[in-house]
Parts: sequence; C-alpha cells; structure tokens
Amino acid sequence: MDTKQLIVKSVLGAWNSRLETADKMFDALSDEDLLKEISPGRNRVVYILGHLALINDKMLPLLNFEGQHYAHLEDMFLNKPDKSVSDMPSAKEVRAIWKNINSKLARHFAALSADEWFHKHSSVSEEDFVKEPHRNRLNVIIGRTNHLQYHMGQVALLRK
Amino acid sequence: MDTKQLIVKSVLGAWNSRLETADKMFDALSDEDLLKEISPGRNRVVYILGHLALINDKMLPLLNFEGQHYAHLEDMFLNKPDKSVSDMPSAKEVRAIWKNINSKLARHFAALSADEWFHKHSSVSEEDFVKEPHRNRLNVIIGRTNHLQYHMGQVALLRK
Repeated sequence: MDTKQLIVKSVLGAWNSRLETADKMFDALSDEDLLKEISPGRNRVVYILGHLALINDKMLPLLNFEGQHYAHLEDMFLNKPDKSVSDMPSAKEVRAIWKNINSKLARHFAALSADEWFHKHSSVSEEDFVKEPHRNRLNVIIGRTNHLQYHMGQVALLRK
Repeated sequence: MDTKQLIVKSVLGAWNSRLETADKMFDALSDEDLLKEISPGRNRVVYILGHLALINDKMLPLLNFEGQHYAHLEDMFLNKPDKSVSDMPSAKEVRAIWKNINSKLARHFAALSADEWFHKHSSVSEEDFVKEPHRNRLNVIIGRTNHLQYHMGQVALLRK
C-alpha cells in the first residue's frame, strides 16, 4: 500500500465510522425526539440533522462530483438560526434528504482513486493550489469529519 | 512538498487550529463558568477539560514520546463520571494540567519528521502494523481531533 492509499484509508475510515455512528444515533431517535431541543433553548435535533445534510450536499460540487441538490434549503439550515422559519421540512423529510445525499457521496467516494483524493477542490484556484497543495479533496473530508463530530457531541446530550 | 509532508500539514493543521479554538473557548470562561454544567444534569466544563487533558496525556506514551504525567487522574476523568469524586483538582489546576500537557505534545510534534508520523503507535504490535500500516501516529491525531471537536461542540452550549 503506498502512502496515498494509506492516508486515504485513514481519513475515509474516520469519516465512514463517524457517519455510521451518526446514522445509528439518528435512527435511534423517533420523529418526536427529532423535534426536541438538544439542551433548553438550543437547536432542535432536526435542525442539526438538516444542517449536517446541507453541509454534505455542498460537498458534491466542492469535491467536483455533481451539483448541489438542496440549495433551496441552504438558507434555512446554514444561514438562519433554528426556529426562525415556518416552512421547515418534516423530520421524516429531513431524514430522507440526509440519507439521499450521503448515498450520493458514498457512490462518488467509492469511484475515486487515491490519487484523485489529492486533486484540488472547487473553492481553491489553480494558482493558489500550486502554492497550497494541501487544499485538496482529502483535506475537505478531514474538516467535515471534525464538523460532524462537533454536532454529534451535542446530539448525544438529548434527553429522550 | 511530497505526499507525506502534504498530509502531515493537513492533519496537524486541523489539530492545531481546533486546539487553538478550544484554548480560546476555555480561556474565555471564568473559573466559576468551568464549574457549571454544559446542559442541565450533564458534565461540568471542568470535567470535560480534565477529560481532554487526560486523553492528551495518554498520547505521550501512545505516540512513543515519553511517559504519562497524570496517570493518577485517569480514573477520575476517563473512567468515572463527573461529580462522582470529592477530590477533583480545582479549575485553575485543571487548566494548568491542560496547558502543560499540550506544550509537551507541541514540542514533540515539532521535532517529528513527516516520515516519523507514519511510524506505528504504541498500541499496535509489529505484526499487526505490517498488515494494518494505517495504524500510525498520524491516524491517532485524526481520531483525537474528532474527539476534541465532539466535546467542544458540547462546551459551546454553556450558558455563562
């Protein structure tokens, strides 16, 4: 196994195991649980789930895979705070969005060679990438795994 | 920059930036804040800080740097739940432990070549490492950064 394959295994392994744990945590919650706040006055679980789903949705174009699918929900889950909009999708719908995006990501990830993980992502220019070659696809996964864990630590606090 | 240097830059960059943010968050809290629960009935911030400090302390031997310094606090912060012991160090003392361990880690990290990050850590045997070479020092940092973020997401919920 060469160095690239080795590190792709480490980084993707961390992402996949954390995502699997997150799935188990969300699946263990009822739709009613999803509408509860993780702590008094804080975000509801459904908002965190939608937030994580939209972050993953944006990874599709960021990693040069395909266009974003839920851009119309970006404002609701990434820019505005929870409980500020009246037309949020139901808990069931947000669960379906999360699963849909993650299955698309998994398909793209499986098709990528170790080398391709070291290609640039779409928010860095060709010029900057020459100077900062660590701004590659793999680096995005490192950041997104950390972001996922930040919020899963919060979801773990929910009292059912 | 070769592949190893590139990925060490990504992984250590993520660790260092998250640790810096964590430091800022803890420094912004008073000693009294540290004694508050992050959410009603949940862990106090001081327990999370001690827990993170002990995880870092255990990285010293895990990464083959030096022996652990605070093994006597391991039971309190890693095995027992918060509020179950009466002799916990003060908020000030836990802060000092956290800074002390992190400065030791930083010194060791700075002395390591990119190649050395791909050496095995101390909980994998020589035989297993041949079969699973991704179980190297760098992989430990990926996991520990995720663990740090899990708890910092919780600390962020504290109401001062």
